[in-house]
Amino acid sequence: MDFQGVKGTRDFYPDVMRVRNYVVDAWRRVSLRNGFEEYDSPIFEYLDLFTIKSGQEIAEQLFHFTDRGGRHLAIRPEITPALARMVNARIGSLPRPIKWFSVPRLCRAEQPQRGRLREFFQWNIDVIGSDSVLADAECIFAAVDFLREVHLTADDVVVRIGSRPLTILALGAAGVPTDRTEAALAVLDKRPKLSDGDFRKFAAENGLTGGQVDFLCRFQDCAEVGEARELLAGQEGVAEQIDSLAELMAALGSLGAAEYCTLDLRIVRGLAYYTGVVYEIFDRGESLRAVAGGGRYDNLLEVLGGPKLGATGFGMGDVVLGILLEEKGKVRPEIQTGSLDYFVIAAEDGTFETVMRLVGQLRQRGWSADFSYGAERSTGKQLKEANRRNARTAVLVRQDGLGVKDLSTGRQEEMTVEEFLRGVKAARD
Amino acid sequence: MDFQGVKGTRDFYPDVMRVRNYVVDAWRRVSLRNGFEEYDSPIFEYLDLFTIKSGQEIAEQLFHFTDRGGRHLAIRPEITPALARMVNARIGSLPRPIKWFSVPRLCRAEQPQRGRLREFFQWNIDVIGSDSVLADAECIFAAVDFLREVHLTADDVVVRIGSRPLTILALGAAGVPTDRTEAALAVLDKRPKLSDGDFRKFAAENGLTGGQVDFLCRFQDCAEVGEARELLAGQEGVAEQIDSLAELMAALGSLGAAEYCTLDLRIVRGLAYYTGVVYEIFDRGESLRAVAGGGRYDNLLEVLGGPKLGATGFGMGDVVLGILLEEKGKVRPEIQTGSLDYFVIAAEDGTFETVMRLVGQLRQRGWSADFSYGAERSTGKQLKEANRRNARTAVLVRQDGLGVKDLSTGRQEEMTVEEFLRGVKAARD
Repeated sequence: MDFQGVKGTRDFYPDVMRVRNYVVDAWRRVSLRNGFEEYDSPIFEYLDLFTIKSGQEIAEQLFHFTDRGGRHLAIRPEITPALARMVNARIGSLPRPIKWFSVPRLCRAEQPQRGRLREFFQWNIDVIGSDSVLADAECIFAAVDFLREVHLTADDVVVRIGSRPLTILALGAAGVPTDRTEAALAVLDKRPKLSDGDFRKFAAENGLTGGQVDFLCRFQDCAEVGEARELLAGQEGVAEQIDSLAELMAALGSLGAAEYCTLDLRIVRGLAYYTGVVYEIFDRGESLRAVAGGGRYDNLLEVLGGPKLGATGFGMGDVVLGILLEEKGKVRPEIQTGSLDYFVIAAEDGTFETVMRLVGQLRQRGWSADFSYGAERSTGKQLKEANRRNARTAVLVRQDGLGVKDLSTGRQEEMTVEEFLRGVKAARD
Repeated sequence: MDFQGVKGTRDFYPDVMRVRNYVVDAWRRVSLRNGFEEYDSPIFEYLDLFTIKSGQEIAEQLFHFTDRGGRHLAIRPEITPALARMVNARIGSLPRPIKWFSVPRLCRAEQPQRGRLREFFQWNIDVIGSDSVLADAECIFAAVDFLREVHLTADDVVVRIGSRPLTILALGAAGVPTDRTEAALAVLDKRPKLSDGDFRKFAAENGLTGGQVDFLCRFQDCAEVGEARELLAGQEGVAEQIDSLAELMAALGSLGAAEYCTLDLRIVRGLAYYTGVVYEIFDRGESLRAVAGGGRYDNLLEVLGGPKLGATGFGMGDVVLGILLEEKGKVRPEIQTGSLDYFVIAAEDGTFETVMRLVGQLRQRGWSADFSYGAERSTGKQLKEANRRNARTAVLVRQDGLGVKDLSTGRQEEMTVEEFLRGVKAARD
């Protein structure tokens, strides 16, 4: 028999696990310092919860099943529906704005390809209960704060910020009928992935005239808020949306994220449920899928049986991010390598009981410590194991005392067991 | 529409999530300082992987499904089969002993009840590639090191240690035929859960004579290794098993875990795959299920297509542990409560841009900092929010400078923005 993991899933061996922990720990640390609180939902839920937001076709991408009790269940492909469910259930008692984050494990029954797996982890940051553009700014700033934390600079990555409502106003200005809005947004969403010729062909097939395409491209190519204001001048509601975008960019400047952020009205986001600002984070080389994507979604809680409540947030998966960190040389070797504070060595016969006693004492004081089970092994072999384990200090136990050796400098001090233990304070004092 | 989570699963709201993180962080910290490296496996695998170890009947307890590609898959109910699969795949290159840990999310399609849910987390510690009893001792010591870490004393919990091979020798000495060994072990495994009368009835139904039951009870009730040695004197292989148990208890003493550990030959463990030392951790009151259980399983890697290799380890779930921590008052309020380093307040009109700048600067230096979106709110209301969020320091921003207020002492210092920022070092310096 030959057992293997399922294609599109990953085995996290210790070296790979350390890189995952490096990323997840940074997500957590950055979230907490940005004032977000962690939550989590179950790995499986009723199937309905996931299909109601994004439609039955998402069931194609779900691992779903019927349990012995006849319940139709699915492994979560995203956490936002569960977030909305949880917030709705306590809507009366949660102080607002609700600033929550999570790092869910998610599964999608997709064909595995570069940057896309069947199982992955996704950082989710959301602010619920605020209509303020500051909530959007906080989410984007948290993303930038994380990018800086893992040493991705503004030369490596860019946050491209668009606006759903402004794009809808542009569609109106171009003369696209209201009942064609969703279809036209889906067309525009494809533009960054197509050549100009292919895009125009695709747009024509979907009922947009050449003049409409020209106008919409001019709108999408506005490099500054002011240009879009001029282009859409006279349309009702434009001033409000323009002011809101300008306020967002100013807030990002005040918080200190401006260098990473750029207005990009080509960003529309595929999912129908976005209602305001939308954004995606890309590598500057644009050789990869988006590293993250998000925006405002003010209707979702209502769709899931709750009140209409302002909500905004994003998701950042670990797969594309992992490729990017690797390509940019940001996964330093020491991230993948384990280490120990102490390796305790039986350097003479009859000292093994003391070795174990020292190891137990060190661990209980919070220091990582280990030893070799082969008590009869030579001191040299045990020292080799200490080095292989990246121990900082080797403690050589002899009948008459200890040699405490700093393995980076090679310096060794002699002392008694009691002197050594007196000198070892609790690790977190 | 009314959406709910599935019965037997948990929604981790921030207060509950903090308790989960408190436990998981302690599991990780203790594992690392005991020299274990973290690994993880996918949440779903081929169904076969889980049924081959424990038989088809375990499929009853699995959430399993067939995906669009016709693959028979299951959500993992335990991680040990995946551990064996991963180790087997790299058996030639992994230095031994392999000391690995994991904190997998696991799912079982069981009826939810006290201490048992359909989704839970389980700390797994394993040593693979060593036949030494020191490997068993290390696992048990790590469990004890964790119990101490979360302030569960030897008065709260006990590690009960038994031996499969010694019990099998006792069955031989009692005259139980070899082909009845597994059945007789299953009978003995039930003893702690039954009254003496019920146990004798159950044993008789399963073919044990009254004399055999008397002998086996005498064996199981031995309080010390020496008693068992006398009782089984003359049986081949007894000396070896007794010496091994004695060595284990001595090693636990040297490491510093003796006060938590006791010999208890009633411990047999239900699963057929154990081959050596077995143990379970219980609350002293014995009102709960086992907090943890484990032992040596030297055949599993071979069953999964690998070599015969010594292996030992345990699992500790978060559900029974959580009840115990709660009952013993070990979940201190501060574990459930979030906090902030700084809350920055717009104390005068026209200061909001400075508020945002300070918040951004503090976060980028590693400090947790937040502010109120309602820039027009009164200073009093913003101070109230600072207190609700357990901020340590409030920074009141005025046109002419800052008031920096320690919220525990109430002391306030006046300074300029520049003075403040000069004084705020990076959080992890």
